[in-house]
Amino acid sequence: MKKIHIIGLGLIGGSFALAIKKSLPQVTITGFDKKQQHQEDAKSLNLITEIKEIPDQDTDLILLATPADTLLPIALQLLENIGPDTLIIDFGSTKASICENLANHPKRSQFLAGHPIAGTEYSGPRAAKEDLLERKVFIICEMEKTDIHLKEKAYILLDALNMKLRFMDPKDHDLHLAFVSHLSHISSFMLGKTVLDKMDDESHIFDMAGSGFASTVRLSKSSPEMWVPIIKENKLHILEALGSYIIRLQSFQKRIAEGKFEDLQSEMENINRIKDILDLDK
Amino acid sequence: MKKIHIIGLGLIGGSFALAIKKSLPQVTITGFDKKQQHQEDAKSLNLITEIKEIPDQDTDLILLATPADTLLPIALQLLENIGPDTLIIDFGSTKASICENLANHPKRSQFLAGHPIAGTEYSGPRAAKEDLLERKVFIICEMEKTDIHLKEKAYILLDALNMKLRFMDPKDHDLHLAFVSHLSHISSFMLGKTVLDKMDDESHIFDMAGSGFASTVRLSKSSPEMWVPIIKENKLHILEALGSYIIRLQSFQKRIAEGKFEDLQSEMENINRIKDILDLDK
Repeated sequence: MKKIHIIGLGLIGGSFALAIKKSLPQVTITGFDKKQQHQEDAKSLNLITEIKEIPDQDTDLILLATPADTLLPIALQLLENIGPDTLIIDFGSTKASICENLANHPKRSQFLAGHPIAGTEYSGPRAAKEDLLERKVFIICEMEKTDIHLKEKAYILLDALNMKLRFMDPKDHDLHLAFVSHLSHISSFMLGKTVLDKMDDESHIFDMAGSGFASTVRLSKSSPEMWVPIIKENKLHILEALGSYIIRLQSFQKRIAEGKFEDLQSEMENINRIKDILDLDK
Repeated sequence: MKKIHIIGLGLIGGSFALAIKKSLPQVTITGFDKKQQHQEDAKSLNLITEIKEIPDQDTDLILLATPADTLLPIALQLLENIGPDTLIIDFGSTKASICENLANHPKRSQFLAGHPIAGTEYSGPRAAKEDLLERKVFIICEMEKTDIHLKEKAYILLDALNMKLRFMDPKDHDLHLAFVSHLSHISSFMLGKTVLDKMDDESHIFDMAGSGFASTVRLSKSSPEMWVPIIKENKLHILEALGSYIIRLQSFQKRIAEGKFEDLQSEMENINRIKDILDLDK
């Protein structure tokens, strides 16, 4: 593997660049970002060797790390022009739509639908971190549709970056992500809004909010530019998850109003098992 | 200051014990917890010098760190028996009810209504941390009702522990805490429930959930034993906060369904200012 081209040099694209530089130092990394500021930052932070709008014909991998709704048009345009030994991997947070739209493309075998489960609430090249992807899950959808030799290049990259592969159907992916990722972003944004709308004097928030509030509201700092396209692309699953969340909140609200505290206690005890399932923070 | 007695040797009581040992090493710390296991842990972890059900007559400070609904009966019983130079400080997460109930007590001046804004999702003496209170806010309500000489003892303690004092009306405290603390616990518990109810195979959660979900759902690991009494005590304010949250979620849901994505974008951008207000995690 000699050449990797990254389109979208924000948090995810930039973190891939840093991790590749460290783990595969022989690889030349080129890249592009339509934002001038991102290009300049990516250069000055040494994320990439060179800004290039068109990747070289002998590029091994093109990584797409742009917002969800831009991935399909970019992939379509690239597929027109790439050499026969190039593989395009997208990093979109939704997978069904892009997989459907490329299903019958004559160069479908030169595309791999991926999703690195990694991120922070920050964005842009300056938020990139060398270890962001370390030991994180990388979901691959419809792996059987990608050429076996090109797929090998993806495995070399993901192995070198110490990522954990999981394989999944694109629709299952989108449904599950609506629940474990997209919903928590919306719940966090609305929590932030509820508190902001209530506080006359916002300096109070800082004083009275403990680390618990900070943790729950953290995702409301995320980039709307990234998240609105995800909501658009995964609309139906997100509506299902959000509806399901609202029903549970209303049921909790009703039982508070009715004073059914023993019932709440046993429900909360039952939810506590999330401790054993998800001890990510240990 | 020579003697401090702590009732309730869990996360908060235990963390006060550790911080006092470090910052005021000359003080003898006694304590009590009605749970046998907590008593044993507190002893074996050296949180306190001695288990005592009845504090000595010459105790300087009695710190109450038990669940919100137990504070009033414990305070009433203690006020019957304490010596004239003892101050009782409660650490309850709700303040209006205890302040109202003690308003006309003949020994009201020997009581200080407090609330340390600190915690984690863990509980019990083993979760106690020496630095949990370091530079955290300590809210005091109705400070004018506490004897000026006894109050001095509280200030010596809170100063030694490097805590930041804030003064507040008990009703304002409860309303604001409903929004910045109690609501985020409920939103987190219901997020956990929504995901648990959806996943047939819970091992999937771990695979697909990133650090964002972990952060948003963290508080759903909290102790129901602590939180149900808080919900009970602060029922009306919590219902207001929860109602306000649900309305915002429904409005967001409606706009997703109607495809009003530009509207969502500008709302989310506006919420992003929480970054500047609350950069607690930096």
